[in-house]
Amino acid sequence: MGREMRWWGWGAPAHRSTAPPRRALAWLEGALGPLGDGPVGPVGLEEVRLAEPALPAGVRDRLVAAVGAGAVRDDREARVLHAAGKGYPDLVRQRAGDCEGAPDAVVFPAAHPEVRAVLEACAEAGVAVVPFGGGTSVVGGVAPLRGPFDAVVSLDLGRLDALDGLDERSQTAVVQAGVRGPELEQRLASRGFTLGHFPQSFEYVSIGGCVATRSAGQASTGYGRIDELVLGVRCAAPAGDLDLPARPASAAGPELRDLVVGSEGTLGVITSAALRVHPAPAERRYEGFMFPSFAAGAEALRLMEQQGIAPDVARLSDEHETRMSFALAGEGRLKGEIARLYLRRRHVERGCLAIAGWEGSADRVQERRKAGAAVIGACGGVGLGRGPGRVWSSGRFHGPYLRDDLLDRGVMVETVETAAQWSELFTLYRAVGDALREHAPLVLCHISHLYPSGASLYFTFFTRQDRQAPIEQWRRAKAAACDAIVTAGGTITHHHAVGRDHAPWMQAEVGTTGIAALRALKAELDPRGIMNPGKLLPEPGPTPS
Amino acid sequence: MGREMRWWGWGAPAHRSTAPPRRALAWLEGALGPLGDGPVGPVGLEEVRLAEPALPAGVRDRLVAAVGAGAVRDDREARVLHAAGKGYPDLVRQRAGDCEGAPDAVVFPAAHPEVRAVLEACAEAGVAVVPFGGGTSVVGGVAPLRGPFDAVVSLDLGRLDALDGLDERSQTAVVQAGVRGPELEQRLASRGFTLGHFPQSFEYVSIGGCVATRSAGQASTGYGRIDELVLGVRCAAPAGDLDLPARPASAAGPELRDLVVGSEGTLGVITSAALRVHPAPAERRYEGFMFPSFAAGAEALRLMEQQGIAPDVARLSDEHETRMSFALAGEGRLKGEIARLYLRRRHVERGCLAIAGWEGSADRVQERRKAGAAVIGACGGVGLGRGPGRVWSSGRFHGPYLRDDLLDRGVMVETVETAAQWSELFTLYRAVGDALREHAPLVLCHISHLYPSGASLYFTFFTRQDRQAPIEQWRRAKAAACDAIVTAGGTITHHHAVGRDHAPWMQAEVGTTGIAALRALKAELDPRGIMNPGKLLPEPGPTPS
Repeated sequence: MGREMRWWGWGAPAHRSTAPPRRALAWLEGALGPLGDGPVGPVGLEEVRLAEPALPAGVRDRLVAAVGAGAVRDDREARVLHAAGKGYPDLVRQRAGDCEGAPDAVVFPAAHPEVRAVLEACAEAGVAVVPFGGGTSVVGGVAPLRGPFDAVVSLDLGRLDALDGLDERSQTAVVQAGVRGPELEQRLASRGFTLGHFPQSFEYVSIGGCVATRSAGQASTGYGRIDELVLGVRCAAPAGDLDLPARPASAAGPELRDLVVGSEGTLGVITSAALRVHPAPAERRYEGFMFPSFAAGAEALRLMEQQGIAPDVARLSDEHETRMSFALAGEGRLKGEIARLYLRRRHVERGCLAIAGWEGSADRVQERRKAGAAVIGACGGVGLGRGPGRVWSSGRFHGPYLRDDLLDRGVMVETVETAAQWSELFTLYRAVGDALREHAPLVLCHISHLYPSGASLYFTFFTRQDRQAPIEQWRRAKAAACDAIVTAGGTITHHHAVGRDHAPWMQAEVGTTGIAALRALKAELDPRGIMNPGKLLPEPGPTPS
Repeated sequence: MGREMRWWGWGAPAHRSTAPPRRALAWLEGALGPLGDGPVGPVGLEEVRLAEPALPAGVRDRLVAAVGAGAVRDDREARVLHAAGKGYPDLVRQRAGDCEGAPDAVVFPAAHPEVRAVLEACAEAGVAVVPFGGGTSVVGGVAPLRGPFDAVVSLDLGRLDALDGLDERSQTAVVQAGVRGPELEQRLASRGFTLGHFPQSFEYVSIGGCVATRSAGQASTGYGRIDELVLGVRCAAPAGDLDLPARPASAAGPELRDLVVGSEGTLGVITSAALRVHPAPAERRYEGFMFPSFAAGAEALRLMEQQGIAPDVARLSDEHETRMSFALAGEGRLKGEIARLYLRRRHVERGCLAIAGWEGSADRVQERRKAGAAVIGACGGVGLGRGPGRVWSSGRFHGPYLRDDLLDRGVMVETVETAAQWSELFTLYRAVGDALREHAPLVLCHISHLYPSGASLYFTFFTRQDRQAPIEQWRRAKAAACDAIVTAGGTITHHHAVGRDHAPWMQAEVGTTGIAALRALKAELDPRGIMNPGKLLPEPGPTPS
């Protein structure tokens, strides 16, 4: 596994697409109808359509002066690789060779002052800047939109890859923005620590990207979302540096840290963050449980969370997702059959699968598991042992690869996610599910992040791709889901961020006064509007001068 | 206990000053030198110096139209009562009859739309507005400064006193801004819940004030600071309403909630907040422990917090504060003597007193106490039983009353508080203590709020009042402490907020770009700068038009 992904999909360039197992395809065809002819892969890199780079020579020279000649690239490979993130419409366009919007250049600064120099050069020249971390955005967050400008550079932060410090006593690490998830975990592990932040994009995600997008990970119920882990942050904005050192807490005015977290590159470039780290757990114990219904499982999760005994990983699939999990489960069919007989006796055969994971010292894991299992049992949950936990754990980062394989087969698979208070969660669940089923026959959902007052909902939907107009097809489904979310009172995004794709719903999220406040902040920190135009805010905001 | 305090000090108007016990005074004289002549109390209300109300008649009429005739007051009592908070310089001035800066009127809106109407009238007329909750600010947060304007109204939120809803399933209460701490606890208790927010000002504090000042309470180590309890907020700004409903979590951009929390009335008026509530604990168990040193006690607190087993209330006095606690302890001298002999055998006689409090179900209290006690013991802590816990608990809101009694005797007592990472905590402790000892012979300190990455420090200092120039004396000590805090890397305030008194250090806290961002926000939400001028931001910011 390297640091860069193949340009048209997920995973290392050397990653080989694999046809989904015949059983899985048959099951999918049962749900979606016939998938048609054989696989249709991406075009070759040399076939990709690119516009000529439009960066004025004078600007290019200034960028070279700022970061060095080797760190300003406008070759085909660099431009295509930075032409999009990994959202469904991005992949559809990339695979079809449509990279006309690729950045005019990619700049690779190696330190905070170099980032500052790049921003100053671009602000003066009126060139848009799009920060690029791991490039894993699924909402168009790294799309090189030009806004009102004629040129755009992608600012790749990959060379800001140092661990600037680990304060073991304060359990705080200062991490540069370009460090990738696995790199950080490896370095922390060698000192006995973990960040505990494992989004599905973990293998490629950058820490700066996580902070900029207010991300959550699969164990965030236990370790906390990234916004709970960020203690300090350094951000280069065109108007100046915001330098907020690590502090445990403060009452000194509005929390500016929480303005930078989630700012998605629209205010400036996060160059490093001080993050809370945890001692690496001695034990990780993941188990499966079956609940008689989604509601019964959700009740168990709510009770555990509100009693302060939730597992660190807590996921509950609805009936649809559970059925698919069982249908696609590869190995252990005989064992699976036995489990099924057992579950039928316990009246949960048609129920919902949950994965609960406890991490920490052996004692604490055992103690917390015992307390949690009592609540699970009281809600009708039945233990399936560690097998399902192992299956989930070994496949926890596989979703995006599967999406590529399904795209080969003409299947559109996309996700939307939201969160709401517990009392509103099932209204939201039904509203979004109903909206999506108008556009896709197969809609799955799980709860995966718990809070005392509510939880997240994560929907995955599948349909046969409309090969004539795949983007429009996607847009209709996405809009229907987003409209349903805001109508039912959910947040437009629990952890994927806003980017380009959710921006039209930001006004519903924060109101006109909220939008005005965000615009005022942006006007102050990025007066020319060069930072990541077209993202986060509902309209293009920046005005050329 | 009513809702309003006596105008010149802490507590109900009927509260009677009591001379400190002779033993306590003797001990203080030992530390500070002779305290001089008998008590000097405040002037009578009729002697207080007030300027004529300067509110133009047209504006007064509009305010009456907005809130009703009885809800616009400019009588002596209302104006004096809203002339200041309860900081040391406030009390010194009030007691001396100096209320020349009193507001020109006090307005009592009863609902959000009335607040909006008041803001619109004042924005049009160019009249400053100072939101006033419980009036408990100790940093000049409710001082009726006029900024560049000729008139100022104090906006008393006491009539916004409803519990707008309690969602038991989501453990979330929507509380209007003027609800007082005890009122809320009483209403929640009748439904089996608690907010768990107990600042020392609890008896008079308003919920809106807590949110606006990013406050912490004595049990915040367990229940979380107010910023962790706020799930949603409604704020009337001159430019419009910010209405952010309760959400468990979101990745939709910068967290605007965290702009309103801590905004101290400079952006708008918080009219209600959605707050996380907890089931009321079945048991509260507070105990005393002695540690051989401040460092040993701090180590125990750090380890418990980082292992996730910290008590809900966790306070550790340094040697100086411990000595004073023992010297002033009233009852149980014989019992105290026995304890002393016991402690001497355990080599902790000269040590530091800690109070640890566990709240929750009996089982959970016992289980957590056991885990905590093991860490305490391993760090050399020795249990003193529940006696010290009872003493602390019964006196937990008494500090401000004692301050009045000491002022009668010519003793200046003031507090400063900060927080830092664990690795920097003792450097900060020494720096602030050294700075304060240049100005006051008696400097006490305790740790009272724990975080995985650090903790708070709360200093109390005593000296004989310079009766000729008490404000200048205070200002010198305060400035020395604040300079030491920012130099040593602490936050300028952990829970008292910024107000008027800490504003000069805000630039050190957030930098010039941070100040610029806050100013831009203010300019957008409060374009004429009428909201609480002279607070939070280092210079008067607003410009008259």
